[in-house]
Amino acid sequence: MFQTFNAKTTPDTGKLRLEALRTKMAEIHVDGFLIPRSDTHMGEYVSARDRRLEWLTSFTGSAGYCAVFNKCALLFVDGRYTLQATDQIDTNIFEIQNIPNDKLTDCINTALSSGGKFAYDPWLHTEAQIEKIISSIHNDIILLEVENLIDAIWIDQPDSPLNLMTPHSLKYAGIHHSKKLKDIGKELTDTGQSHVVLTQPDSIAWALNTRGTDLGQTPVALCFATVAADGRVNLFINLQKVNDELRDHLGSDVIINDVSNFSLYLESLTGSVRIDPQTAPIAIKNILENANISVVAGADPTILAKACKNKTELDGCIKAHIRDGAAVVEFLSELKNLDTNLKISEIDLVKNLENKRIATGKLKNISFDTICGSGPNGAIVHYRVNTSTNRTISTGDVLLIDSGGQYLDGTTDITRTIAIGSVPIETVRLNTLVLKGMIAISCLRFPKGLAGRDIDAIARQALWSVGLDFDHGTGHGVGSFLSVHEGPHGISRHNQVPFEPGMIISNEPGYYEEGHFGIRIENLIYVKKATNSKDTNSREMLKFETLTLAPIDQTLIDISLLSHQERKWINDYHANVLEKLYDLVSGSAKKWLNLACAPL
Amino acid sequence: MFQTFNAKTTPDTGKLRLEALRTKMAEIHVDGFLIPRSDTHMGEYVSARDRRLEWLTSFTGSAGYCAVFNKCALLFVDGRYTLQATDQIDTNIFEIQNIPNDKLTDCINTALSSGGKFAYDPWLHTEAQIEKIISSIHNDIILLEVENLIDAIWIDQPDSPLNLMTPHSLKYAGIHHSKKLKDIGKELTDTGQSHVVLTQPDSIAWALNTRGTDLGQTPVALCFATVAADGRVNLFINLQKVNDELRDHLGSDVIINDVSNFSLYLESLTGSVRIDPQTAPIAIKNILENANISVVAGADPTILAKACKNKTELDGCIKAHIRDGAAVVEFLSELKNLDTNLKISEIDLVKNLENKRIATGKLKNISFDTICGSGPNGAIVHYRVNTSTNRTISTGDVLLIDSGGQYLDGTTDITRTIAIGSVPIETVRLNTLVLKGMIAISCLRFPKGLAGRDIDAIARQALWSVGLDFDHGTGHGVGSFLSVHEGPHGISRHNQVPFEPGMIISNEPGYYEEGHFGIRIENLIYVKKATNSKDTNSREMLKFETLTLAPIDQTLIDISLLSHQERKWINDYHANVLEKLYDLVSGSAKKWLNLACAPL
Repeated sequence: MFQTFNAKTTPDTGKLRLEALRTKMAEIHVDGFLIPRSDTHMGEYVSARDRRLEWLTSFTGSAGYCAVFNKCALLFVDGRYTLQATDQIDTNIFEIQNIPNDKLTDCINTALSSGGKFAYDPWLHTEAQIEKIISSIHNDIILLEVENLIDAIWIDQPDSPLNLMTPHSLKYAGIHHSKKLKDIGKELTDTGQSHVVLTQPDSIAWALNTRGTDLGQTPVALCFATVAADGRVNLFINLQKVNDELRDHLGSDVIINDVSNFSLYLESLTGSVRIDPQTAPIAIKNILENANISVVAGADPTILAKACKNKTELDGCIKAHIRDGAAVVEFLSELKNLDTNLKISEIDLVKNLENKRIATGKLKNISFDTICGSGPNGAIVHYRVNTSTNRTISTGDVLLIDSGGQYLDGTTDITRTIAIGSVPIETVRLNTLVLKGMIAISCLRFPKGLAGRDIDAIARQALWSVGLDFDHGTGHGVGSFLSVHEGPHGISRHNQVPFEPGMIISNEPGYYEEGHFGIRIENLIYVKKATNSKDTNSREMLKFETLTLAPIDQTLIDISLLSHQERKWINDYHANVLEKLYDLVSGSAKKWLNLACAPL
Repeated sequence: MFQTFNAKTTPDTGKLRLEALRTKMAEIHVDGFLIPRSDTHMGEYVSARDRRLEWLTSFTGSAGYCAVFNKCALLFVDGRYTLQATDQIDTNIFEIQNIPNDKLTDCINTALSSGGKFAYDPWLHTEAQIEKIISSIHNDIILLEVENLIDAIWIDQPDSPLNLMTPHSLKYAGIHHSKKLKDIGKELTDTGQSHVVLTQPDSIAWALNTRGTDLGQTPVALCFATVAADGRVNLFINLQKVNDELRDHLGSDVIINDVSNFSLYLESLTGSVRIDPQTAPIAIKNILENANISVVAGADPTILAKACKNKTELDGCIKAHIRDGAAVVEFLSELKNLDTNLKISEIDLVKNLENKRIATGKLKNISFDTICGSGPNGAIVHYRVNTSTNRTISTGDVLLIDSGGQYLDGTTDITRTIAIGSVPIETVRLNTLVLKGMIAISCLRFPKGLAGRDIDAIARQALWSVGLDFDHGTGHGVGSFLSVHEGPHGISRHNQVPFEPGMIISNEPGYYEEGHFGIRIENLIYVKKATNSKDTNSREMLKFETLTLAPIDQTLIDISLLSHQERKWINDYHANVLEKLYDLVSGSAKKWLNLACAPL
């Protein structure tokens, strides 16, 4: 299994660990210390070694931070995680604060008196984060950089992962890394910069056509790199993770260094060095500036290039979705024929779905912990089933399953909402409204130059019409055998990055009724140039092409609410699903697929 | 007539005037001078005295500016006005620059050498505008404030308008000005400010419940004012514009000063003074800072309050739209029965429409120069007919008429696109796509908290689907017997101001085929709380209520392109138009109205 179901935390360890931390704080004369959830690479996933927040507080959520003072310890989490945090931590010693209403800087200002010292590890915070703190704390409070105090007291802290960095074949990557590096070098030359420091493992993985297994579901190797204006690279990685195959792949233009030499190397740079203030730890800026090296703030140059998939990557992604779709169909056909007397649980379903993907023989990992929420569990947007929340599936349940696979040729992410037996007509109506939003995005054409925030309303209009909405973005970017959450684009009120052909994105409106059920329907789509219409005045337009292939539960569709165009979309979609998957699935699944894809 | 049709300009005067300006520039040793289109109040309309840009260049457009240097004189206009400027000015002496591609600061940097002096009149530019220049010019160029050099050479410059400022009755305003002033005072107290300086005539008109006729179509009196934290006002206005009726209306809490004392008074202020950097001339900030008075940048406190109309204002606006609708119906019924053999021209139609509005006995002015564009003229978005562009209406023409009236109880703004006889089926299809966007906004419900930029796509989706779009916002705010273009809200990709109940806004998608025809369909709508739906999970939602009443040309609608809901909207709308207007129009108009409002 690529996923575990153990949610047991050890909140009782918090007290002693907090005491040890405060002793350490006293030793070095600081009055506050900040423990983030992120590691130095600022990604969504962190290795066991970097789970400092969890080690201290027992909170396992994917976002949050803790500020420890002498008199209080505050755990900041957003609305998704308030309940989970309450369950997981010892609330007698850690006080929960709500992001974004409660402000870290207000707490620092309250907890510390004039001359008070608040400390942080500069390798675990970006310049942007620290600037935000500086701009709002009282100017008689001293902000201090220190060695990590958790590492100092965490006696059995695991090592950093030491898995091999491996080549990612050109047949999947599409563009040789020497070409990518030359392009990055050109961008640096054009802006008068000598180097860029890459700190995100997926940026480096993309630029070097490499992958890894350090973070499990995101197939990268932890490392740093610099790219010079001539395209030459210095890679900083634990040398145990490097073998001859990788050396051959990288070639002589990529110099491999042990990660322990990273800081020293940075000090030796000349010229003007780009770092991304949104993602690079501030320690890097400090090292460069202390060595009198000119630092320029600029976006990581791989981000946009990585987002715009090339033809090889898109072709791979299409293949991955056919393979993944067939696995999902096997799963769904069994699910729809489920005998609820057998007391099948959410965990059973997660295992079963993973087994279907493993049976393709191509699965490298799942792309994230499967969300399988039946009934009220489906209403928890970031639900992960564990042994204590696990529910047995019953007739009448609405089941929300959001899952994906990592294949060499592509990353998948699909959500289907399934009725187990018959469900109230009202639920069918709500599912249909969500579906209308999902179809509206699928069918949309829009002028080049627009961003996610310009089109987000299109996914919500049907729900809005009856006073409803959902509290998450409509879609996120997706990598190519890389992170399932990949920027810079997205469909949300806040995303300002214009869509470009080749961007892969999820299209996943939803609706959640707390305590009852959740609905979400998600396909991955990619951005494509729309052919010009016959109108002479027509403009350069973009459209979306659907990647995901799996039936949408027709028992949850109220046909009377669909327009002619929406009905046609569903029928065309199902015809395509049937055509692409029929030959790939088992006999019993074939039978079910035929029914599930029948025209409305 | 409230509108003239004379477009004759005198480009040949430009040469001598430019010479005089350069002589003046040499006298005071400056190398460049900036002439804006705005007056000191930064509004859209300017009085004859303030038409400095037009006097110098002959360009009459509503936006632009001229930068005069020793060797060149550059007229900056945006895409709307490039052609018009070319027609109106002497291009041998004025060079046209395109906003936003050509940058004023680039031109300053090119035209001036080190130590060069670029001058401007601080009463005619905001702090925001000047900051923008400062941030981009070479730092060896000197930016200088000077007395206005055009005023110095414009021998027969008209006087400022001296029309009376008049009370605006409580029966139209709804809230006594003492209450409004108290609210402004409270906002100042809450933010620790002693005064706010109001520089926009419509802000002052709203706050004092006064109106005027200084700017014609926008019913305001030119003046300045300050409001103190106790709600007391100092008004600065030419005393010839004040009579006893106004003094009685304003009461003892409003001290009336001659406008000549404004600067001196500003110097006498104490405490912390708010000015709006987006709209206040930088001269005011300079005066305050030179007198060591603390200046705080903050929004004009009337803007949001003015935009959210109270019940009296909304009721008035509804009445104004019924009255205006009846006048428009009289006009449309004649237009639809037009004998094209009579050689009726665009100017004839503009006059006729104005006469219908005058016949209501309540028209104070039109709310802007009527746009009446037939055939290719309709494709010019900001078209104003004049004697040289005037076209005779022929069968087969598509006619776009955008017009409005100023009534004591409300401001109207309506656009209808009318087929004269039969037009190609393709035009009908395009008009229907525009109409679908207009209906989509009319029917929209959306969560409170959203702004224009979050919903703009809804108006464009139908056009986008065939590769088309329009290059203007979908809607602008509208005042209550005030400016027909009133912020802060709007429907466009750029407007971030959340909608609030009571805001009036235009809903006017369009489509333009250069050289052929223009389509725009515009109703005014206002924001209203939507009643909660039966869904238990429903949120606080807003919706739009339609104000404008006049038939939409059914000969330009392709029913086959409409959804059931869209068709129902049209039929309900027309039924309402018929019900509200039937008794108010003449016999022949009644007959036409019945047909025009028949169900689709």
